[in-house]
Amino acid sequence: MDRKLVEKLLAGYKSGDVSIEDALEQLATLPIRQLDDATLDTHRGLRLGFPEVIFGQGKTVDQVRRITRALSDAGNNVLATRVTPEMVVAVQDEMGPGLVKQDEMARTFLVTNKPVEMTGKGRIAVLAAGTSDLPVAKEAAFTAVAMGNEVDEVFDVGVAGIHRLLHHQEKVRRANVLVVVAGMEGALPSVVGGLVSRPVIAVPTSVGYGAAFGGLAALLGMLNSCAPGVTVVNIDNGFGAGYAASLMNREGVAG
Amino acid sequence: MDRKLVEKLLAGYKSGDVSIEDALEQLATLPIRQLDDATLDTHRGLRLGFPEVIFGQGKTVDQVRRITRALSDAGNNVLATRVTPEMVVAVQDEMGPGLVKQDEMARTFLVTNKPVEMTGKGRIAVLAAGTSDLPVAKEAAFTAVAMGNEVDEVFDVGVAGIHRLLHHQEKVRRANVLVVVAGMEGALPSVVGGLVSRPVIAVPTSVGYGAAFGGLAALLGMLNSCAPGVTVVNIDNGFGAGYAASLMNREGVAG
Amino acid sequence: MDRKLVEKLLAGYKSGDVSIEDALEQLATLPIRQLDDATLDTHRGLRLGFPEVIFGQGKTVDQVRRITRALSDAGNNVLATRVTPEMVVAVQDEMGPGLVKQDEMARTFLVTNKPVEMTGKGRIAVLAAGTSDLPVAKEAAFTAVAMGNEVDEVFDVGVAGIHRLLHHQEKVRRANVLVVVAGMEGALPSVVGGLVSRPVIAVPTSVGYGAAFGGLAALLGMLNSCAPGVTVVNIDNGFGAGYAASLMNREGVAG
Amino acid sequence: MDRKLVEKLLAGYKSGDVSIEDALEQLATLPIRQLDDATLDTHRGLRLGFPEVIFGQGKTVDQVRRITRALSDAGNNVLATRVTPEMVVAVQDEMGPGLVKQDEMARTFLVTNKPVEMTGKGRIAVLAAGTSDLPVAKEAAFTAVAMGNEVDEVFDVGVAGIHRLLHHQEKVRRANVLVVVAGMEGALPSVVGGLVSRPVIAVPTSVGYGAAFGGLAALLGMLNSCAPGVTVVNIDNGFGAGYAASLMNREGVAG
Amino acid sequence: MDRKLVEKLLAGYKSGDVSIEDALEQLATLPIRQLDDATLDTHRGLRLGFPEVIFGQGKTVDQVRRITRALSDAGNNVLATRVTPEMVVAVQDEMGPGLVKQDEMARTFLVTNKPVEMTGKGRIAVLAAGTSDLPVAKEAAFTAVAMGNEVDEVFDVGVAGIHRLLHHQEKVRRANVLVVVAGMEGALPSVVGGLVSRPVIAVPTSVGYGAAFGGLAALLGMLNSCAPGVTVVNIDNGFGAGYAASLMNREGVAG
Amino acid sequence: MDRKLVEKLLAGYKSGDVSIEDALEQLATLPIRQLDDATLDTHRGLRLGFPEVIFGQGKTVDQVRRITRALSDAGNNVLATRVTPEMVVAVQDEMGPGLVKQDEMARTFLVTNKPVEMTGKGRIAVLAAGTSDLPVAKEAAFTAVAMGNEVDEVFDVGVAGIHRLLHHQEKVRRANVLVVVAGMEGALPSVVGGLVSRPVIAVPTSVGYGAAFGGLAALLGMLNSCAPGVTVVNIDNGFGAGYAASLMNREGVAG
Amino acid sequence: MDRKLVEKLLAGYKSGDVSIEDALEQLATLPIRQLDDATLDTHRGLRLGFPEVIFGQGKTVDQVRRITRALSDAGNNVLATRVTPEMVVAVQDEMGPGLVKQDEMARTFLVTNKPVEMTGKGRIAVLAAGTSDLPVAKEAAFTAVAMGNEVDEVFDVGVAGIHRLLHHQEKVRRANVLVVVAGMEGALPSVVGGLVSRPVIAVPTSVGYGAAFGGLAALLGMLNSCAPGVTVVNIDNGFGAGYAASLMNREGVAG
Amino acid sequence: MDRKLVEKLLAGYKSGDVSIEDALEQLATLPIRQLDDATLDTHRGLRLGFPEVIFGQGKTVDQVRRITRALSDAGNNVLATRVTPEMVVAVQDEMGPGLVKQDEMARTFLVTNKPVEMTGKGRIAVLAAGTSDLPVAKEAAFTAVAMGNEVDEVFDVGVAGIHRLLHHQEKVRRANVLVVVAGMEGALPSVVGGLVSRPVIAVPTSVGYGAAFGGLAALLGMLNSCAPGVTVVNIDNGFGAGYAASLMNREGVAG
Repeated sequence: MDRKLVEKLLAGYKSGDVSIEDALEQLATLPIRQLDDATLDTHRGLRLGFPEVIFGQGKTVDQVRRITRALSDAGNNVLATRVTPEMVVAVQDEMGPGLVKQDEMARTFLVTNKPVEMTGKGRIAVLAAGTSDLPVAKEAAFTAVAMGNEVDEVFDVGVAGIHRLLHHQEKVRRANVLVVVAGMEGALPSVVGGLVSRPVIAVPTSVGYGAAFGGLAALLGMLNSCAPGVTVVNIDNGFGAGYAASLMNREGVAG
Repeated sequence: MDRKLVEKLLAGYKSGDVSIEDALEQLATLPIRQLDDATLDTHRGLRLGFPEVIFGQGKTVDQVRRITRALSDAGNNVLATRVTPEMVVAVQDEMGPGLVKQDEMARTFLVTNKPVEMTGKGRIAVLAAGTSDLPVAKEAAFTAVAMGNEVDEVFDVGVAGIHRLLHHQEKVRRANVLVVVAGMEGALPSVVGGLVSRPVIAVPTSVGYGAAFGGLAALLGMLNSCAPGVTVVNIDNGFGAGYAASLMNREGVAG
Repeated sequence: MDRKLVEKLLAGYKSGDVSIEDALEQLATLPIRQLDDATLDTHRGLRLGFPEVIFGQGKTVDQVRRITRALSDAGNNVLATRVTPEMVVAVQDEMGPGLVKQDEMARTFLVTNKPVEMTGKGRIAVLAAGTSDLPVAKEAAFTAVAMGNEVDEVFDVGVAGIHRLLHHQEKVRRANVLVVVAGMEGALPSVVGGLVSRPVIAVPTSVGYGAAFGGLAALLGMLNSCAPGVTVVNIDNGFGAGYAASLMNREGVAG
Repeated sequence: MDRKLVEKLLAGYKSGDVSIEDALEQLATLPIRQLDDATLDTHRGLRLGFPEVIFGQGKTVDQVRRITRALSDAGNNVLATRVTPEMVVAVQDEMGPGLVKQDEMARTFLVTNKPVEMTGKGRIAVLAAGTSDLPVAKEAAFTAVAMGNEVDEVFDVGVAGIHRLLHHQEKVRRANVLVVVAGMEGALPSVVGGLVSRPVIAVPTSVGYGAAFGGLAALLGMLNSCAPGVTVVNIDNGFGAGYAASLMNREGVAG
Repeated sequence: MDRKLVEKLLAGYKSGDVSIEDALEQLATLPIRQLDDATLDTHRGLRLGFPEVIFGQGKTVDQVRRITRALSDAGNNVLATRVTPEMVVAVQDEMGPGLVKQDEMARTFLVTNKPVEMTGKGRIAVLAAGTSDLPVAKEAAFTAVAMGNEVDEVFDVGVAGIHRLLHHQEKVRRANVLVVVAGMEGALPSVVGGLVSRPVIAVPTSVGYGAAFGGLAALLGMLNSCAPGVTVVNIDNGFGAGYAASLMNREGVAG
Repeated sequence: MDRKLVEKLLAGYKSGDVSIEDALEQLATLPIRQLDDATLDTHRGLRLGFPEVIFGQGKTVDQVRRITRALSDAGNNVLATRVTPEMVVAVQDEMGPGLVKQDEMARTFLVTNKPVEMTGKGRIAVLAAGTSDLPVAKEAAFTAVAMGNEVDEVFDVGVAGIHRLLHHQEKVRRANVLVVVAGMEGALPSVVGGLVSRPVIAVPTSVGYGAAFGGLAALLGMLNSCAPGVTVVNIDNGFGAGYAASLMNREGVAG
Repeated sequence: MDRKLVEKLLAGYKSGDVSIEDALEQLATLPIRQLDDATLDTHRGLRLGFPEVIFGQGKTVDQVRRITRALSDAGNNVLATRVTPEMVVAVQDEMGPGLVKQDEMARTFLVTNKPVEMTGKGRIAVLAAGTSDLPVAKEAAFTAVAMGNEVDEVFDVGVAGIHRLLHHQEKVRRANVLVVVAGMEGALPSVVGGLVSRPVIAVPTSVGYGAAFGGLAALLGMLNSCAPGVTVVNIDNGFGAGYAASLMNREGVAG
Repeated sequence: MDRKLVEKLLAGYKSGDVSIEDALEQLATLPIRQLDDATLDTHRGLRLGFPEVIFGQGKTVDQVRRITRALSDAGNNVLATRVTPEMVVAVQDEMGPGLVKQDEMARTFLVTNKPVEMTGKGRIAVLAAGTSDLPVAKEAAFTAVAMGNEVDEVFDVGVAGIHRLLHHQEKVRRANVLVVVAGMEGALPSVVGGLVSRPVIAVPTSVGYGAAFGGLAALLGMLNSCAPGVTVVNIDNGFGAGYAASLMNREGVAG
């Protein structure tokens, strides 16, 4: 399209319909538009089959309803995180309940205007150390599913009972990418990172009290993991982990 | 091999050469060894074509020389990080200089007992915001190369001169995985994460002074990146970033 | 006025109406009053055309109503920040609604007893990275307008979509002073500081969660900005930024 | 120049010397170059009469010498900060001593290939609380002078002897922009900000011990200043303060 | 009394009424009781004319009522801090309103079973930087009065308007001990410490937001005060400051 | 002895040799001495068979030599921690080498004036995650041995290779008390705490870099251990861990 | 049992009923099950006579009721911590009130399906510095009692009235293990550690305000205790302290 | 003197020698000078008999020598803190050794140009918890002596051996003001504050390692002291404590 714009401009100039001044003026403004469409493409998510995403926290029920409608009208699937039950009800009323899949524990919903394209090459495993970590783990899993991945959930496998983790070795070993969610001392990613040869995304949670300092202890633990191959996202950022895992699990750019 | 051990044990029992007590005793101790070989395989690195790794910091020149020799005698390539020039000289004396490739700025060397197997599917781009970030960026790049990847280096592309980054768009866009190294405010990964649809590994560095607090400012900035798909490693951990990038760039586990 | 007092005193002394003791006594007490009026002038704001300012947070509705009335009775415009909707209603009841301009999102109101004198030399641009940063950005903009400046608002231009910023280049480039508001990693001021040659006031916000630590991540990022010319105010301090920008945008003291 | 390139390209296309494909191809690559020259101009410093700047810390003597030579050969003045005496000697040897002005306490030098253009509209006052703050204050002053400003220095005016500050009221009051440098509790900017109606740039220093925490106490104090109009730069960042003050003191963009 | 116990014991032993074993046994247990009465006297507060003190925070209304009654029945005055209006009502009901003096802003009450003995040698001045600091300042003042001191209050004298402080010089200069309360940057104690030659007790408050970090900024500022003679108490600890000031203002131990 | 003093005093009083005044006077001063010998016994270490302990850090070689001599002359064994090789040489010269047992890696020595009494009921296991943790682990082990315990060392069993730990199960399981030393993320105590039913003393080390923050990450991790039964000592405090383990491993006080 | 499984498998193989492939296959899966039963025994708590434990915080009333029922049905005692009064009522309704013992201040209950077996060798003393520390101290005491220990409580013995502690010397001295709970400056464990030769478990509490920073001050104080033999648990972790004390007070593993 | 200036000015005006303009001009500048002499007297130290003070840290040997000479020439005593042995030698050479009293451990010297006037009303006790705290304690004691006080030193009385403190009760009890110096957990001031009814100045030291965090643990402990009457100075600030103690120990301002 942009290319057509330029062709048309050049043709107009060649034919004399466009003066050199006008041609220069229009070309001068092109770069930005061109940046927009091609170079700095904001619509990459859409074209890649990723849903649009709404961060519900701090928004009103009505804002979430309206944004969902707007994004949805463009034909895309719409993923929302950190939403309240009220937001889900409002969106279901707006869109019709059949379109809206939710996970209450994960505080997420997905409006599925079209089937999710399963673009993940392998499986993503989401592990959680304790039951209190489940909302964050579920958010990661929901995100990964919404972005076209098969997801295995392996929950309640904290390091103080290491045999529980070993029990789920099959799911752990067949994963192409792993998201490991833990609060308190945040040690699980190190143990998992020592068991597999695939990328491990560690998610610290704010679970704990006292010297947990709102997830700081888990965060520092994960950043200092003695297992190479472990990378870390923000405290409680299940969405970010699910998103990054999806990128890692997609067919990428060949060298 | 382990399988052969068990076969032999079972055969001995069947033939009567091994009593039920002895068979039970030996089997009782198998799990651990079995864990060692198969379940909890420490040699995965080697079998995957990854080099053995030495962390030089805090070790003596002689320790590095001896560990290098030992690991090398097993026929593996040996990667060392955080090494001093003295360590490199000692290892070159020990191994013969032809075998030892080094990068002084990266503070790394690689003993190449066999050609590095190029197992990376795509290219890895290593970006650095400032010249002071180069030692960490070089460590990441050296690691990725030693682990069998093609690496593009894009240095000195800090966010205060965003056009410099845009100039290197080709290298940025053709990368399958990106390692982005930055100190001070650590903003580069966010900008890069907004330009590409591939995994971005952010590496904060301790470059800066005052309120940089030894890399804390950059670390917090990266953890709070507004670009999804960005994951973070420890401050100055170029090796970890290169290692994680290599895992992401390898053929993984099909679903 | 003070000058007149002194003249009168001196005249009284010359004429003999005032004894040397009384003259000395009165002069001895003058310094402080003189400090008050001239040297350490607290009324500088008023004389410069700046409105009186109320910080609403922590005050009762009635306190705000009464203080507004008192300051207003002196004929000044009155700016209030961090006010609740209830405070606005109470002040509108008190002053008459026509006098009170408010911005609900900015949590501010201005009682305009006289037209705002447009003393700003150039335009002030207020940029915000995300929609959650708007209350702080709006507070800065409202303050700058109340202090006599033309203000351009450029919102939702976070660094993860850098092209959005480039789209608003005209507003960015025509600004004499820029206020840049961002939470999370707080990277926007660095990018803006690299685009312009005018003073940039960075305002970190408490937007974010986890390792954002209530705005600390953004604050540290901005203090470590790699772009010179960036100065920083307290977390969420939109008023302070708007005030400082107004000072920078006024005709100053010639050398 | 870029304009000429485009004119030439369009002319070639009109004349038939350049095919539509070639024209499109070349235009497609123009935006970036155009960004470079016009939109995202890195040379703005030079054109504005600002010197090129070298940050000496972490560089070798030879690196500083070579970079100085290279920047200098382009005809610009060259400012260097955080340089050692050895660097100054090396640069004097390289450039000839007559060209190199230094301030040992400030750890700075300026190579003056052409007279500094005095572009500042008013005077800049640099205040320092204690003698230990002088290196940072001098760095700010040297930077401001190198960028074309008249600078007044007001040193040793800590708040525990507030009358000392009052003694220098003339210099304080005639300043168009003020840079206020303080370590320990960092209270001076608040006091100064209460005395003047001009922008105050506060610079915390790492002077102090114990609970000064390397300048953190002063930094927090300044960020929480009860005087509006105070903005803050990084700990010990005299250069940044001098640079920002210079921007504030120049003729800006008219509205 | 204890002395009498020992005399009696010794007499009993001498007379043969007490065996050597019994005497030894009883003497062996004496030290602790002796510690209690004489050496480690807990009742020093009472004998010195200081009231008993209740810390209301975290207690129930009924607990405060009952403790007040119990302490009061011993004939002492009873000071309570951090009390709610409900607690005051309950205590007034319990004790009769005439006995209970309260300060609502200070969140304190005093049950005066006997007149407060004015034991302070000089006057105590309590200064506060801003109106938000008043609850803490009032707590300090109420405590000092309850402990027998004449108190001068000098409020709203923040450093950004230093002349306001100078206006109250008389009260400042006539004080034997000064309590200086400030939030935000906490600079007031440094300025006051430079004006007087008497002990200054600095009280940081949690007033402020953002980088005030709940009083940390003010606390660090005060600990790093450049004025010698300034000592510091915990954030918001008006009681502790008033108590310490009272100790300093009493006739002490002659050398 | 004290008892004898009192008997003598009482006898003197009974016989009339000691007046009532003198008796009272002397008894009045007894409590403290009595506290010294019996109640608040400082010599408990010695009587329990524990060696005297010297903390070498911050002392001169000569100070360590002299203190060792003095403590040794009382016939006790003398344990020294954080000593340099020079201190060991000096003490060997002083005491004769045969008496001085040292561990260079642990930076400790023990002067054995009498055989160490083996008072430990069971065995103490000292585990260390990495080779860099060995100095601290060795200090704990050396301390425990010097205090009369059998010690098993299980080193290099970090959680990223969990099977290594499982290999040493026998030593782990037979331990009555466990000291677990780890730096970086400090996860090992949690895993060990999940394997055993005995007290686990966790020792964070300052091993690591960047976000390890000098052992803070490991410390927080251990304090937040999800395994109950884990208690923690200060960073790098191998001595404290060995000492506490020894207390736990001794015959205690029967209920 | 496992042993029987293997015996049966081997017999089947010997008899030819099981092929070599099937035998190998089954043996390959054995280790994990074997880990489960013997090596990594999760049921150790039960077999040792320890109750099952529920952490009530963050759970719903109904969740606590159901988990209690489930654990109770296995015949075990069930300990719950951090429970609300509503949870206790619900559990009493579910189980019958006679079975449920609660401590409201400790926020705990114990369902006693069988008498608590008194397995503690000695007595455990729980000390608390202030009345506000009681909930945590009571939690520790309740836990220790539920795990079969005799417990002495010594409350309100803060260090500012050190004689109060000395008054309770008997309880302190007869304890085999001591749990010492304190908020604010957390100094009590140091003093206690200097009085006894038994293990001291220090529990910092979040009691305090301002620079107590939610228990951080007490935590750091305890970690830096000058008394050896003191180990520390997380802030407010009364349960962990009671649990660790119980482990220390049980008959352990003989060397 | 100032009064004479004003009298002269008024007389000149009356006589016509001074015009009204000149009189006004001169009077306008008077306040500051008046502030200087009377209101904001910087020479209070000198007139009160306090020595001039030099902070040696960060100064060169020659700077200290010259400043000492200059201050000394005015006839005052000169106190210097944080000085090196080289500085002491240089000053002794300059001033003659007889005049210079030094304390090497305290890192202080005093040039006594006139006898120290003993202005302290009572005695000051300086207590230190451990031998490593002595430099700071000695600095406090040296300062107090130089400012005219009788000082008692009570060293090595850490809380883990509380009876040692009790042994020195006489010195503790006879003190009019107490300075209490402690590192590590910093608990000593709380214990001392519970023993006496006089002001206690707590000085945290940077003694310790690991979680001592350079004195932060001690600082927080002291700020949270459960003993009222304790105030705190900066970490290692022995001078500040000695200075404040001297102020408290002087005859103050009668009410």
